[in-house]
Amino acid sequence: MASPDDDQDSFPTDYEIAQSTEMEPIWDLLEPWDLGNDDLQYYGEYKAKVEHHAVERLREDAEDREQNLVLVTGMTPTPLGEGKTVTTVGLGQTLNHIGEEAMIAIREPSLGPVFGVKGGAAGGGYSQVLPMEDINLHFTGDLHALTSAHNLIAAMLDAKLSQGNELNMDVNEVSWPRALDMNDRALRETVIGLGGKTGGTPREDGFLLTAASEMMAVLCLAEDLGDLKERVARVIVAYDDDGEPVTVDDIEATGPVTMLLRDAIKPNIVQTIEGTPAFVHGGPFANIAHGTNSLIADKAAFGMGDYLVTEAGFGSDLGAEKFMNIVCRLGDMTPNAVVLVSSVRALKYHGQDMWPADFDAIEESGIDAVERGFENLDKHVENLQKFGVPVVVAVNRFPEDSDEEVQTVLDHCRDDLDVRAAESTVFAEGSEGGVDLAERVVGAVDENDPEDFTHLYEDEASIKEKIETVATEVYGADGVNYTGSAEDDIERMEELGFEEFPVCLSKTFHSLSDDASKKGAPEDWTLEVREIYPSAGAGFLVALTGDVLTMPGLPADPAAADMDIDADGNISGLF
Amino acid sequence: MASPDDDQDSFPTDYEIAQSTEMEPIWDLLEPWDLGNDDLQYYGEYKAKVEHHAVERLREDAEDREQNLVLVTGMTPTPLGEGKTVTTVGLGQTLNHIGEEAMIAIREPSLGPVFGVKGGAAGGGYSQVLPMEDINLHFTGDLHALTSAHNLIAAMLDAKLSQGNELNMDVNEVSWPRALDMNDRALRETVIGLGGKTGGTPREDGFLLTAASEMMAVLCLAEDLGDLKERVARVIVAYDDDGEPVTVDDIEATGPVTMLLRDAIKPNIVQTIEGTPAFVHGGPFANIAHGTNSLIADKAAFGMGDYLVTEAGFGSDLGAEKFMNIVCRLGDMTPNAVVLVSSVRALKYHGQDMWPADFDAIEESGIDAVERGFENLDKHVENLQKFGVPVVVAVNRFPEDSDEEVQTVLDHCRDDLDVRAAESTVFAEGSEGGVDLAERVVGAVDENDPEDFTHLYEDEASIKEKIETVATEVYGADGVNYTGSAEDDIERMEELGFEEFPVCLSKTFHSLSDDASKKGAPEDWTLEVREIYPSAGAGFLVALTGDVLTMPGLPADPAAADMDIDADGNISGLF
Repeated sequence: MASPDDDQDSFPTDYEIAQSTEMEPIWDLLEPWDLGNDDLQYYGEYKAKVEHHAVERLREDAEDREQNLVLVTGMTPTPLGEGKTVTTVGLGQTLNHIGEEAMIAIREPSLGPVFGVKGGAAGGGYSQVLPMEDINLHFTGDLHALTSAHNLIAAMLDAKLSQGNELNMDVNEVSWPRALDMNDRALRETVIGLGGKTGGTPREDGFLLTAASEMMAVLCLAEDLGDLKERVARVIVAYDDDGEPVTVDDIEATGPVTMLLRDAIKPNIVQTIEGTPAFVHGGPFANIAHGTNSLIADKAAFGMGDYLVTEAGFGSDLGAEKFMNIVCRLGDMTPNAVVLVSSVRALKYHGQDMWPADFDAIEESGIDAVERGFENLDKHVENLQKFGVPVVVAVNRFPEDSDEEVQTVLDHCRDDLDVRAAESTVFAEGSEGGVDLAERVVGAVDENDPEDFTHLYEDEASIKEKIETVATEVYGADGVNYTGSAEDDIERMEELGFEEFPVCLSKTFHSLSDDASKKGAPEDWTLEVREIYPSAGAGFLVALTGDVLTMPGLPADPAAADMDIDADGNISGLF
Repeated sequence: MASPDDDQDSFPTDYEIAQSTEMEPIWDLLEPWDLGNDDLQYYGEYKAKVEHHAVERLREDAEDREQNLVLVTGMTPTPLGEGKTVTTVGLGQTLNHIGEEAMIAIREPSLGPVFGVKGGAAGGGYSQVLPMEDINLHFTGDLHALTSAHNLIAAMLDAKLSQGNELNMDVNEVSWPRALDMNDRALRETVIGLGGKTGGTPREDGFLLTAASEMMAVLCLAEDLGDLKERVARVIVAYDDDGEPVTVDDIEATGPVTMLLRDAIKPNIVQTIEGTPAFVHGGPFANIAHGTNSLIADKAAFGMGDYLVTEAGFGSDLGAEKFMNIVCRLGDMTPNAVVLVSSVRALKYHGQDMWPADFDAIEESGIDAVERGFENLDKHVENLQKFGVPVVVAVNRFPEDSDEEVQTVLDHCRDDLDVRAAESTVFAEGSEGGVDLAERVVGAVDENDPEDFTHLYEDEASIKEKIETVATEVYGADGVNYTGSAEDDIERMEELGFEEFPVCLSKTFHSLSDDASKKGAPEDWTLEVREIYPSAGAGFLVALTGDVLTMPGLPADPAAADMDIDADGNISGLF
C-alpha cells in the first residue's frame, strides 16, 4: 500500500510521480531480456502477459541462474500499511542499481481496497510499478476472469441444485459462495433463490472478495495450464446427503472454468519507475489463502535475474509463515534472505498498545513509545529466524521520523538482536535510498546456507500438530482451543485423506494474536480455532480463527468518493 | 448467434473455421485504414481499442464519406436465432467483395448467453469476427468494467444507506440492483444486508445481467468521455423520503465510476474472417435497453468506409424500433436501408403456431407451414416501412432448406410485398454467398431518399402517446392497458421533467405481442404496461410489459458443460 503522508503537501502524489515518468514501450524494455513479440501478449503499450512457451523457456534459463530468493514481509502494521510493496519495488530497483541482476514479483491489486481505503497497491513514490492507474484499475483483467470463473461455478451449482439435484447436494452444506472484486458489506450475508420456482432454490449465501476465492489460490499455486485444470477439478463446492464432497468436476464446470482462466494464468509483466521489469500477478488474501503472487511469475522471474525480490502479505505471522510453510513447500523453493519492513510509526503504535490506531497520538509520541514497540518487531525477527533464513530489518523512513528515532531502531536491531538493519528511503529517493539495504541483503544472501532452511512442520504431522506449531511457535499462543465444528472438521479432513495438506490459518493482521486490539507480542493467550475446511484445489487446509472478514466493507468516507477523471482522461485521487 | 446445425456433421464448427483462418496482426490490417500505432491500444495481436483522438479524427473524416447506414434486423426468431450477426458480418464482407468500402459494427457478447445456450455472438461459419474465442470470453474487458462500475454504485449506495443515510433514501425505493455477467437465476431475487449491524441494511435486492444495466446503455449512447461522465452523474439510483430522485452524483460515485469506464468507452476493432475491419463494442439488451452497439463505434466507422452495416437485437419490434426511435434520434443518424433476416425455420415455427419450439416438428413440416408463417414476416416488413426506409429481406439459408422453400419466400417478398429479397449463404460461403443480397442493398440505398426517414413519434408527444404508438403501430396491439404502478409512474416521470424522453418498451422477443406463446402477427390483444421508470443517464423511459427477465438462468444442460480446454490451450465446445 502506498501510504503517502497526508501532511506531506510538498511531495508529489504517487499518480503525479507516475505521470511525470517516461515509460519505455514494454516491447523495447523487454528486448534485452530476450522476450520478443512472439513471447508477449500486449495490453496496450506498457503491459504484457508472458506466453506459456516463454515461461517454459525462462524456467529452463533459471537453471543457469543463481535463483537468490529474497522475501519481503513486515512487522504487524498500522491500518495504513508500512510500505512493504514500496520496499519490495525499491529493493529490486536498487539491486540493479548496484550492479546485480534482479527481478521483482508482487501481487496485483484488488478493486475492493483501491476504492475502500486510500491507497492502491502498486508501491508508491519513486518505488512503484507502472502504469499505476492501469494496474490499480482493471489491469489485464485477471481479477475479473477469476470473478467470472468463481461465479460460473456458483451458477452451475445452483442450476444443478434447483433442477433435479441429481448429485443429492445438501442445501445446507453448499461450501461455494459467490464473489465480487468490490468491497460491499451488504453482500456478506444474503438469502438467494427467492421469487418462486423459476428463481432457484432458496438458501443462505454470501459473497467473498475475489482475492479470497479459492480460484485465486489455485491460480497462484498452479504450475501451468494443465495443472490449473487439475486443481480446478478438485475444488470442493458442496457435500452430498452422505457427507461426500461434490467437486467442480462433478458439476461439469472444470472445462469452462479453466477456459475462463486461459489468459489469467499467464504472468503479467510491467516496469518500475526506474525501468526494472516486474511481474505483477495474482493477489490472494494472506489469511484464508497464502498471500503471495503466483508461483508461475516466481519461476519465470528466476530465469531473468539472479535475484528475485518478492513480497508476502501482512507480517511474519501471516504471509511470510504461509510463504515458508505452504508456497515454498508446494513450489519447491528456498528463500535466501528475508527483509522485515518496520517503521517508526508502527513501533509507536505497538508501544502505545493502541486500538484503534490514532495517528495524531502516534505522531506526538516519543522515543520511549518506539522502544516499547520493539516487542512486536523482536517477535517477528524471532519468527523468521526459526525458518533458518537470515533476516534484514528495513526501517522504511517517513518524512516525520527523526534521525534519533530511526537510529534507535537500527541500533536495537544490530546491537540487541544481532541482525542486519538498514534505513530505507526508496519511497522518496528510489534506488538512491536503498543502497545500504540492498548491500546488506546481498551480504545476507552470500552468507546464507540454503541447507539451513526448514519448514516448521512436516507433511506427516497431524492436523492438530500443524495448527499448534504455527499457533505456539509463530503467534506466541500457549495452545489451541478447538470450538464450533473444528473437532468434527478435523475428523472429516482425515477421512477425506487431506491430513497431509499444510495448514493455512486465517487470523487478523492487526495483531500477532487472534485479537485485533492486542498490540506488541501478546502472551498468555490461547488460539481459538472454530472451523477447518479444505482448499482441495489449492492443496491446503484453512483453519478459521476469530472473525476474519472475507468481504470488507466501504468506510463512511470511501477513497472512491475522492476519485475523479476529467473529459481528457486525467485521473485524480487515485494514490 | 451462430446457430450451426447440430446435424451438420460434415461442416466444420465455428471454432474450427476460426482456427483454420490466418489472421493478420491488427496493426498490419489497420494500416491501410490510416490507423497507426498511436491510434490503437492493443490487446494481444488481433484486438485493439481505438484511442479517443483517432475516433475524433475518424468523425471528421466521415464528413467526406457517404455514410450509408444499413441496419440488419430480423423477423421474430426461434430460440436459436436466425443468423442476424452472421448476415451482418457476411453483408459487410460482401460489400467490400463487390467493390464498395464497408465497415461493420456489432455488439459484444455477454458471458451469460455464451455459457447458457449453445452459441457465442461473434457470427458464425464463414461470416464471423475473429478471434471468436477471445471475443466470446473476456474480449477487452468492457463487460467486466461495466460490471465493476455498476456494482461500485451499489456498494457506495448501500454504504450511504447503512452509515447514517444522510440523503434520507427510502430503503423501499432503491432502484439500483447489482449486476453480474453470468446467467444465474438464483440471484434474481435476493435479500441482502443480513448478519447484523456490520452487514449493512437488510433489504430486498436482485441482480441484472450486465447487458441489462443502465451503465451499458449509457456507455453505448455517450458521445465521448465527457458526455459519459455527465450521463453517469444523472443516473437515478434511489428516491428519498420526499420522493425526490437520488443520483449517482449524489452518492459521490460519478468520478470513480467514469474512471472505471475509461477504457471501456474506446471502441474495439477486430477483423472478420475475410479481413474486413469490424467494430465490436457495447452490448445492451434489446428489451429494457436499446439493443445496438455503441454510437461511438458507429460514428468512427462512418469515417472508415462509405457503408456501415450494423445490427439491432431481436426483431423490428425490439432492436430496430429502438434503433429508429431512440438511437437515430439521440445520435442524429439516418438509416438508408434495412435488411430483415428471415429463415425457412422461423417461418415454419410461426406457421405452426408453436410454443415452445419443437425443432424436429419444424424440420418435418412442409411448404404450407412456411406460407402460414408469412404473417410474421409481413408484419415486420410493414413495421420497417413505416420508418420510411427501404427494406431488403434476406433469407438466411440453412442446409436443410429446400430450393422450393427458399424460392417460395423470395417470390412472396418480391411479388406479394413488392420488396427486395435475396437468398444469403454467407454462413457457408462467406462473401461468395452474399453477392445478390449486397447488390440489392446497394440498389436500395441508391434509390433511398434520406428525407423519407421518420421517427414514429415526436419528442413532444405525451408518454402515453409514445407508448401507444409503438404498441399499436409496431406490435399490432389494439391499445394499452396500464396496470400496477404504471399510471403513477407516468405522473412522476412528468413531474421529474422526463416527458420528452423517448420510450424503451421492454417486451418478450418470442412474439410480436407481449405473450411469448403467440406466433405469427397476433391481433385483438391489448398491451399491458405495468411499470415505467427512467433511464435518466441513457436518456429514455423504460416501460415494462409482462414478465421480462433481466437475469436469465442456466438451462438443465448448459452450454458450459460441453466446453473444455486442454493443457495446450485448445478450446472445444465454444460454438
